[in-house]
Amino acid sequence: MSRTIKLTVAYDGTAYAGWQRQPGKPTLQDTIEQALERIVGERIIVAGSGRTDSGVHALGQVVSFHTAARLAPLAFQRAFNAELPRDIAVLNAEEAAPGFHARKQAKRKRYRYIIHNSRTHDAFGQYRAWHYCFGKLDAEAMHRAAQHWVGKHDFRTFESQWPQRSSSVRTVFDAACRRMPAPRQKQLEFEVEADGFLYNMVRTMVGTLVEIGRHRKPESWAAELLELGDRKHAGMKVPSHGLYLVSVDYE
Amino acid sequence: MSRTIKLTVAYDGTAYAGWQRQPGKPTLQDTIEQALERIVGERIIVAGSGRTDSGVHALGQVVSFHTAARLAPLAFQRAFNAELPRDIAVLNAEEAAPGFHARKQAKRKRYRYIIHNSRTHDAFGQYRAWHYCFGKLDAEAMHRAAQHWVGKHDFRTFESQWPQRSSSVRTVFDAACRRMPAPRQKQLEFEVEADGFLYNMVRTMVGTLVEIGRHRKPESWAAELLELGDRKHAGMKVPSHGLYLVSVDYE
Repeated sequence: MSRTIKLTVAYDGTAYAGWQRQPGKPTLQDTIEQALERIVGERIIVAGSGRTDSGVHALGQVVSFHTAARLAPLAFQRAFNAELPRDIAVLNAEEAAPGFHARKQAKRKRYRYIIHNSRTHDAFGQYRAWHYCFGKLDAEAMHRAAQHWVGKHDFRTFESQWPQRSSSVRTVFDAACRRMPAPRQKQLEFEVEADGFLYNMVRTMVGTLVEIGRHRKPESWAAELLELGDRKHAGMKVPSHGLYLVSVDYE
Repeated sequence: MSRTIKLTVAYDGTAYAGWQRQPGKPTLQDTIEQALERIVGERIIVAGSGRTDSGVHALGQVVSFHTAARLAPLAFQRAFNAELPRDIAVLNAEEAAPGFHARKQAKRKRYRYIIHNSRTHDAFGQYRAWHYCFGKLDAEAMHRAAQHWVGKHDFRTFESQWPQRSSSVRTVFDAACRRMPAPRQKQLEFEVEADGFLYNMVRTMVGTLVEIGRHRKPESWAAELLELGDRKHAGMKVPSHGLYLVSVDYE
């Protein structure tokens, strides 16, 4: 009888060409499917809650798959952690309802973006934070600006042109930017939770907030951009290696 | 006229065979000397406050060198950060008193050891924390045990046999072990500050505390070991990649 297993997975995305399987490149999906094949003896396609881009990290990606194997969830978790490379960790495994699908049923996702805001680069942050060295960012202004995005809005301004989704309306439940307390005061974190994200939406939001954080644009610009509806007006798309998929919620 | 420059340097030690220059291997000393040579046009030997082992990291290693170059300290810092690989960062550069030597005049050093205490490995900690998966460690017992080491003691029990120093008496000013607050509650940190450290002393202290933290040894064992004076009685030497040189103090 087929069962559905739900995994919560953390990974350092540095060594991977993103989530989705593609020929000739190491991807997270492929690496997890290979580990699963060694565990259950057959190739099974796994579903991720979303496709993280090359270099993007996850603290709580959700993965689902169907299998006839009889292993208990904890045995699956241990087997995965024995088989996977050290930059991928299965934090939890559980039995899911039949038909559960990690992407199709995702209701909310939370992303974090980490900025190392210092003249000097972070020797430990090369692949784990974006180094912003052009002056101190005003985290409080960035936080206030981001509040304009909370609620149900058309976010097409923050969507990369490819791929176009049928609708670019999303609901943002929470958006927060803060400078971390000492001794991590050079680190800024932006977190945003929504019912879904358009392509490159978080990274374009951060690029927009940075313009506000250096006072080149007013806080109200965040609201004006929603009205404009054209990607060319928003801030730059910041690099992928500062981005973390924090968690995915289901009903 | 010769000047003395003092640098504060952070590095991710993962890619290096330790601090000290050795033929055919990438070391921190050699990498910094090569950068300095590109800046001032001549090979200059630099002194570090101490020799971190292969894989050991630094948040505030201190480095000194003599030069006739006229660059201002800030220009030195910027030139180093432009020349060095991204896993080394010069956090500060300043003019030091003539004759200042980073190792000979060090009065206090502080080290941190990070343990990832979880059944599951940390996807981000492969080279930056030691994974301890054999049960939850009692950080409070470890903290109390470490208090036996505060003060002036003969620490030969915690010294690897090679190299023997003339005296194994050191003064520990502070020793503290704690479990980090949520969401980092799987992380234990041990910090110790002393007027000097014997070879592998911190790593052997941590291996000793782990025995106490899993309740295989009583807290008083930390005091008894000081009396025994023989390395074979202490705990294991834990791996280098959890160790960080935090800071070095001078008078």
